[in-house]
Amino acid sequence: MADKERFMKRCLELARKGRTSPNPMVGCVIARQGRIIAEGYHEKAGGPHAEVQALKKAGKKARGAVMYANLEPCCHHGKTPPCTDAIIKAGIKNVVCAMRDPNPRVSGEGIRQLKAAGIRVELGLMEKQAKRLNEAFLRYIPSKMPFVLMKAAVTLDGRIATSSGDSRWVSNEASRRTVHRLRDRYDAVLVGIGTVLKDNPRLTCRIREGNDPIRIIVDSKLRIPLDAEVLADDNVMIAATEACDSKKKARLEARGIGVTVVNSGRRVDLYRLMQMLGELRIISVLVEGGAGINASALEAGIVDKVMFFIAPKMIIRGKPVTEGKGPKLMKDALQLNRIRIRMVDDDLLYEAYLK
Amino acid sequence: MADKERFMKRCLELARKGRTSPNPMVGCVIARQGRIIAEGYHEKAGGPHAEVQALKKAGKKARGAVMYANLEPCCHHGKTPPCTDAIIKAGIKNVVCAMRDPNPRVSGEGIRQLKAAGIRVELGLMEKQAKRLNEAFLRYIPSKMPFVLMKAAVTLDGRIATSSGDSRWVSNEASRRTVHRLRDRYDAVLVGIGTVLKDNPRLTCRIREGNDPIRIIVDSKLRIPLDAEVLADDNVMIAATEACDSKKKARLEARGIGVTVVNSGRRVDLYRLMQMLGELRIISVLVEGGAGINASALEAGIVDKVMFFIAPKMIIRGKPVTEGKGPKLMKDALQLNRIRIRMVDDDLLYEAYLK
Repeated sequence: MADKERFMKRCLELARKGRTSPNPMVGCVIARQGRIIAEGYHEKAGGPHAEVQALKKAGKKARGAVMYANLEPCCHHGKTPPCTDAIIKAGIKNVVCAMRDPNPRVSGEGIRQLKAAGIRVELGLMEKQAKRLNEAFLRYIPSKMPFVLMKAAVTLDGRIATSSGDSRWVSNEASRRTVHRLRDRYDAVLVGIGTVLKDNPRLTCRIREGNDPIRIIVDSKLRIPLDAEVLADDNVMIAATEACDSKKKARLEARGIGVTVVNSGRRVDLYRLMQMLGELRIISVLVEGGAGINASALEAGIVDKVMFFIAPKMIIRGKPVTEGKGPKLMKDALQLNRIRIRMVDDDLLYEAYLK
Repeated sequence: MADKERFMKRCLELARKGRTSPNPMVGCVIARQGRIIAEGYHEKAGGPHAEVQALKKAGKKARGAVMYANLEPCCHHGKTPPCTDAIIKAGIKNVVCAMRDPNPRVSGEGIRQLKAAGIRVELGLMEKQAKRLNEAFLRYIPSKMPFVLMKAAVTLDGRIATSSGDSRWVSNEASRRTVHRLRDRYDAVLVGIGTVLKDNPRLTCRIREGNDPIRIIVDSKLRIPLDAEVLADDNVMIAATEACDSKKKARLEARGIGVTVVNSGRRVDLYRLMQMLGELRIISVLVEGGAGINASALEAGIVDKVMFFIAPKMIIRGKPVTEGKGPKLMKDALQLNRIRIRMVDDDLLYEAYLK
């Protein structure tokens, strides 16, 4: 691997350390003569940007050096001053970045300012990887809708549970750890009330120093038991409809549990719910639903990506992974693309994006 | 790749050219000083063996040369004289073979005879690949049961058809070509009457110079229409039960269509059917069933291997790939192992063996 790619790869690694939502994850490397002299990353929203962190570490050595970052440096006053000013002031000679900042307040303007100051700028190195890293941010910025990942663990014959409802476990331990790593990275995890009633999950992130996502329960009529594990703390939102029981709503709210009435009608409008989550600056949602929520999410058109853990098992009968209306003709099936496959021990992990 | 592996790989390639059922596929290479001087393969049952073909081509040059073959040479008089005699007579110095012949009439005896004649014998080179190539033969020889491959084309959410029954097409063109290559190689293809009534398939091999498998229709009550496409020629067997309509049976038989009464009762006993096919020296069966036949075959314990073409589609509702009784607990699911995955254009091909 050439130096450039090596440095950019390091930026991506550094970036991933951040828990920056609703900001993008950014890593930065400052190099001289093929060697890294300073690194930085954006740790959390409101905190210093990656570029500023790296410049601070580099000190005077930044003069004449090359800066690598997976995102175009910002040029606006947000919670922190513009990175472009700091880069110019430090005397950086070249800037290599993977992708433009889709934020309309930047979107090429950062690069333009650097160039105007006589800095050589290269754009597009490892762009694909950089875009994948910040796919939630890229979805959120133009649409104000969160990026939605549907995760499922299925048998080879497409079931998430046996006919009696048993689902412990479909996927192997390594796959389940991968799911906890997703929970750590996603702002929210969403399930239907069916899953709560059947499995009584906690939906927390059980990895060391992991972050718990906000737990969103789609529960139109507020059937949730007050002693459900998902209500163990107030990091939870219940999405209901106007048809819900107002007394139950009051009781939940008295407990500090947020209940959001999304719409009238019998079923929660998931599209509207996503809009509301976007307004709350939730940029990524992990759907871990049962067959009904999976189908509703797909049919509402809110799903951006799927991750299926396919276990080497056949169960012959049982709960399908999706159960909704569905099209009459195979040619009208929802189409997936950008497929990636890999084995997680003996489970197959299938990732793809909705077209 | 070392010469040895290269030569053995060539044996496997040659072997695959044969349509040898119920015999194994065998390819043979004779080499001197790192060069192939003659090749041969077993073309069809009753025809000359690979070793004899290669020795014939090598002529006098065989003296002092090395022979490679993917199977232990035979030492018995079958339809052709023993290969071991021919090898010894030709003056072959070393023999390298991938695996023992599981046939109890050989099973190490061929190797013993060669060694007794002063030939150095090496066993086990590329054994895994050799065993995979002749997996049907290896299943059939000790058990007299055919090797059964269940093939299915499913959406990512586990459906083989929409709710209205449409299944044209689930998988892509390249996957469908792969299925025709399977039909060319398998002795028989098996479907349920449901598939015949719904799709009216021909179940022939539509590749140039391909071999049509025997078409086996599981049709306990003989509901098959006399003008069904699968009855276009008499290369077909209908598996029924004693509950079938004897007049319909007579009509089918008058048309030259074989009807086999497998058992009493309402449903065809697939295990018994496989035994009967084994008695007919059918060593490999490709199950291309619908949900019912797939489930019955799995529950009867006759399936050795599965091949799932997983299309990048979600259909949300529709016909599952299996529909039977199934276990109550996930831990009692049928287990698969020796998983292999690869992309066939945008379909994922998942192959595995039943434990």
